[in-house]
Amino acid sequence: MGKRRKIGEFKIIERYFSPLAADEPGALGLLDDAALLSLEAGQRMVVTTDTMIAGIHFRSLDAPEDIAAKVLRVNLSDLAAMGATPISYTLSAALTDAVDEDWLARFTRSLASDQARYAITLVGGDTVSTPGLLSFSVTAFGSVDAGRELRRSSALPGDLIFVSGTIGDAAMGLLALRGELEKLDGALVEILVDRYLRPQPRIELGRRLVGQAHAAVDVSDGLVADLGHIAQASKVVATLEASRVPLSPAARAALSSDPSLITTVLTGGDDYELVFTSPPETALPLERLADEMGIALTCVGSVAEGSARVRVVDAAGREMAISNAGYQHF
Amino acid sequence: MGKRRKIGEFKIIERYFSPLAADEPGALGLLDDAALLSLEAGQRMVVTTDTMIAGIHFRSLDAPEDIAAKVLRVNLSDLAAMGATPISYTLSAALTDAVDEDWLARFTRSLASDQARYAITLVGGDTVSTPGLLSFSVTAFGSVDAGRELRRSSALPGDLIFVSGTIGDAAMGLLALRGELEKLDGALVEILVDRYLRPQPRIELGRRLVGQAHAAVDVSDGLVADLGHIAQASKVVATLEASRVPLSPAARAALSSDPSLITTVLTGGDDYELVFTSPPETALPLERLADEMGIALTCVGSVAEGSARVRVVDAAGREMAISNAGYQHF
Repeated sequence: MGKRRKIGEFKIIERYFSPLAADEPGALGLLDDAALLSLEAGQRMVVTTDTMIAGIHFRSLDAPEDIAAKVLRVNLSDLAAMGATPISYTLSAALTDAVDEDWLARFTRSLASDQARYAITLVGGDTVSTPGLLSFSVTAFGSVDAGRELRRSSALPGDLIFVSGTIGDAAMGLLALRGELEKLDGALVEILVDRYLRPQPRIELGRRLVGQAHAAVDVSDGLVADLGHIAQASKVVATLEASRVPLSPAARAALSSDPSLITTVLTGGDDYELVFTSPPETALPLERLADEMGIALTCVGSVAEGSARVRVVDAAGREMAISNAGYQHF
Repeated sequence: MGKRRKIGEFKIIERYFSPLAADEPGALGLLDDAALLSLEAGQRMVVTTDTMIAGIHFRSLDAPEDIAAKVLRVNLSDLAAMGATPISYTLSAALTDAVDEDWLARFTRSLASDQARYAITLVGGDTVSTPGLLSFSVTAFGSVDAGRELRRSSALPGDLIFVSGTIGDAAMGLLALRGELEKLDGALVEILVDRYLRPQPRIELGRRLVGQAHAAVDVSDGLVADLGHIAQASKVVATLEASRVPLSPAARAALSSDPSLITTVLTGGDDYELVFTSPPETALPLERLADEMGIALTCVGSVAEGSARVRVVDAAGREMAISNAGYQHF
């Protein structure tokens, strides 16, 4: 059962992972059977989990720093979409023989940097050696005032639909990594690739949307698919105006040389922006919030009564046929 | 990125996993970005996580019912070792092409059965398709009164060391599955194999030890190794009397035809019994508890001051050399 590496599981934990848990007494130094988490009165624990596998969710040759950032941040993005404040996380790592101490040092340094950035600590985990694929499972914990969380099911007819930041960059970054955006300027390619490799979870925005937004989700499967999750959970029709979807200069440049990339923008995943619905009277406060935070918040459509679905319309209001409504993991 | 199966991720979740979350409103039907967990005032959340990979922690051809029981129960055993009451769990599944709907139906029926048995519900998870190895990560949640948890670091000089049930059965079960116990009677082999395939976490015992035991750990890496975790965390010497380690009739029969199997008993893992330290004055109450619960609790040694280590001694008190101090995952 299993096999020995040059450095054993306990040494790996002691040398690389325990330091990540040093600031949280409840982690018990990663030396006990389980960790202890506290919750203030009136709060609820928000829990999310994601598994990422080499060759599917990241590339085996991605820098360990980028892999660390991705596996952690996609979970923080789920917390953001609930309006939660991140607290801590557990990490299960299935390591291959290709993972040496240098790799582990870089991987865990990146986690340490994100721990400082997002004010979280490692509280538990599991490290196993696998003859299969390098993979990581993170379970992230956050807190939210009871009953105040942003759900997918709370969109109401009459709501406007907003997205943060710009959409489509990450999916275009993946195309660029595959050599499919050859005409694009190198500096722009770099911006897109960075969006793909290093998600920026909208944690502070999610917290600030509590009490303002009705429903929220993060853009991980693709804008149309994720908006579809809101439409389905809330049993409403969401109309998305394609021409209003905010684009970065890099995405705009790519799109101008190949207009068919609009499908990539609308259905590509991995942006980790927030898409949320909010009543019209919040438009002005949201504008002020956007200014204050320096994050674009763009109205891209509206919610109406009707059967649960997403209508994508062009600038003239004509419904567009979207062939692939978002990345499915299968 | 990824590939499609005949049945998509969302269908798998809807058909097989969502029903497991139906009784817990905080699971949000597995349809939101995250789940919501509550905690009563004065309690702490106990969190543990384990990843199990085909070919390492279970055999690919094991029955889906057994795989489900194992991935869930090893986590519940960690909660038991903390004295916690299980509440819920998340499950990340990396599924291969070999997993069809019949397999999923059997796997999730087994989870449903364990949910009823242990009064827990699924609250979240992630399902991905992998070209690699079938694997599962479970994160389990329990609760314990703040400050009352059973830690590994609380053993005190003068404590007695107890184990629940019998030790070595699971490791012998694995030997039997490998055809290495050919002389043993078929009915006895079956008992040992069942102990290997279907752990019985000592949850109720763990809860009842709160306030009685000082330190506790579950026997997953092997009795000597796990007792070593207590010795290290508590900075004490743990003396284990090999001749007092409780054996099942099946293990005794195997041992009588091959005395060298004592090493397997002492260092084999996967028993998922509890080993704990407790002051001498609790011996009588523990005896009554054992009677009441119908679980053997056997004194197998004692704790003394000294450098953190385990001494294994024979019936004459001579220190035994144990070659392999327990299963290491690497």
